[in-house]
Amino acid sequence: MDKKKRVYAIVGTGAIGGYYGSLLKRGGVKVHFLLRSDYSYVARYGLKIESVAGDFELSSVDAHASVDTMPKCDVVIVSLKTTQNESLKDILPYLLKEDSIVVVMQNGLGTEEMLSRELGIKNIIGALCFICSYKIAPGIIKHLDYGQVSLGVFSSKKEGAGITRELKEVLDDFLNAGIEAKGVDNLALYRWKKLVWNIPFNGLSVVLDTTTDVLVNKKESRFLVTELMKEVLAGARACGYFIEEEFISEMIKSTEKMKPYKTSMKLDFETKKPMEIESIFGYPLKVAEQHGAMMPFVKMLYKELSFLNARNLGKCGSCF
Amino acid sequence: MDKKKRVYAIVGTGAIGGYYGSLLKRGGVKVHFLLRSDYSYVARYGLKIESVAGDFELSSVDAHASVDTMPKCDVVIVSLKTTQNESLKDILPYLLKEDSIVVVMQNGLGTEEMLSRELGIKNIIGALCFICSYKIAPGIIKHLDYGQVSLGVFSSKKEGAGITRELKEVLDDFLNAGIEAKGVDNLALYRWKKLVWNIPFNGLSVVLDTTTDVLVNKKESRFLVTELMKEVLAGARACGYFIEEEFISEMIKSTEKMKPYKTSMKLDFETKKPMEIESIFGYPLKVAEQHGAMMPFVKMLYKELSFLNARNLGKCGSCF
Repeated sequence: MDKKKRVYAIVGTGAIGGYYGSLLKRGGVKVHFLLRSDYSYVARYGLKIESVAGDFELSSVDAHASVDTMPKCDVVIVSLKTTQNESLKDILPYLLKEDSIVVVMQNGLGTEEMLSRELGIKNIIGALCFICSYKIAPGIIKHLDYGQVSLGVFSSKKEGAGITRELKEVLDDFLNAGIEAKGVDNLALYRWKKLVWNIPFNGLSVVLDTTTDVLVNKKESRFLVTELMKEVLAGARACGYFIEEEFISEMIKSTEKMKPYKTSMKLDFETKKPMEIESIFGYPLKVAEQHGAMMPFVKMLYKELSFLNARNLGKCGSCF
Repeated sequence: MDKKKRVYAIVGTGAIGGYYGSLLKRGGVKVHFLLRSDYSYVARYGLKIESVAGDFELSSVDAHASVDTMPKCDVVIVSLKTTQNESLKDILPYLLKEDSIVVVMQNGLGTEEMLSRELGIKNIIGALCFICSYKIAPGIIKHLDYGQVSLGVFSSKKEGAGITRELKEVLDDFLNAGIEAKGVDNLALYRWKKLVWNIPFNGLSVVLDTTTDVLVNKKESRFLVTELMKEVLAGARACGYFIEEEFISEMIKSTEKMKPYKTSMKLDFETKKPMEIESIFGYPLKVAEQHGAMMPFVKMLYKELSFLNARNLGKCGSCF
């Protein structure tokens, strides 16, 4: 594929897909945006990014309300929340050519496996985003902090797939668009490393109704954060991904330095949106248990979150 | 001791001590009530019980604001919350004769051990109360449901101390007062059995902000209730107290039949009182771990409750 000709699709134009898709488009890449509720607004007014790195507007974008109007694309970025992954079966087959690349820009574990196993997709890249952003209105995304992206090729090999041609191509487009991106040779390892942070801080922030700074500073919650992190390391190791013990103290130290921060799961909970419980807790738990690692604190947190999520979404009838 | 002559003290005249103390007094026993904040009201107006079994009033009671005015007593009922146990060191030595009996009418584990080890008290009886009651105003106690008391002699013997003369005497007074009481030959076993219910329902009702009926009916919480109960059984067994597996389904079935119920820990939490975390969670965890049983779900719940308790009591400075 010639770089100039690569055509992108953004499946899920929210805080993440809208942000990175807009940067790619501004960088000169052809980008098709798939939207649901915000379609008519964005089709008319485009996208606006209010960013710490400088605001910008795309007054006209290729917005689509359905895959019917979209072409086959070279790269399809999946930036739906994992709670909406059911819909991918009805979307991706219409956007992919034989050699298309799917970039999974999501939290947690399991989407790449599902796309590979259930949809038979061959070229899958996982993207880990370290970013604070949220949608403040249809077509308007607030970018508060960070923005780095790590890209890695999905593979069942424990040592990872390394840096492939496809990875380099996507990486090139990201870098050319001014995105602080890097390639990683072992996607699964990095997904587990991200879980080391995501599991304790996302989960506890909801169950204990608090923010990252409190979790890391208070004795009881810091104990829980540390124990949860240890369990994630044990789970990762059982699955064949070795993370050094020191990674825990690094994560805790870096969280101490962060501004007080409401996690994405906490924001979802407060706005009564589905929390990404299965990808961040359920799937990692399942594969860790399949490999003989018990993660009891993680499991307890998983069940507590599942309970709170069901009540929050009013899925449980009148007795809640 | 002649039955007619037994003099009782109630240390902690609240929902439990006030209720049972009033029944004993009504039954003809001499009872001295120790009070703190409600002293002047009760000294003047006595105690009133609003009970499902019929209201009654004791217009004049022996109320005391301090041990200084109290005589040595034959039976001292400790019905403080376990969170106030620190004060027992300053109270009990003034009330006890050589052969006095202390009746520990509290939740959880550890008080009898502490009284034996730290205060050298010899005759200790534990009382397990199955009752719904609360104090609605100074000197006024609402009795909603139940009321059974199981009395057992504290002993370090795994098989229990059996039914001793002291136990029979106290039991006699309770029965004569119309209290539905029975003697149990192995106190520790029954304390662990009570924890099988108290640990999941008290803990989860606070962390998940809900009631017993929801906990037992919703899939995720019922899973947690069951797993927590299994851990308590394992902890009890490690400590030498065998509870049959079927006890779990019995507890769950009987909770299904109960009216929707806010646990005492949940009520304490909502009224910003200290929760009895150490006696219900901390001490059982400690002894189970000393005997080689890990209770990870219980431990997680313990730490979550400790976090919430500290915040609830405002003990953690400004950042909460």
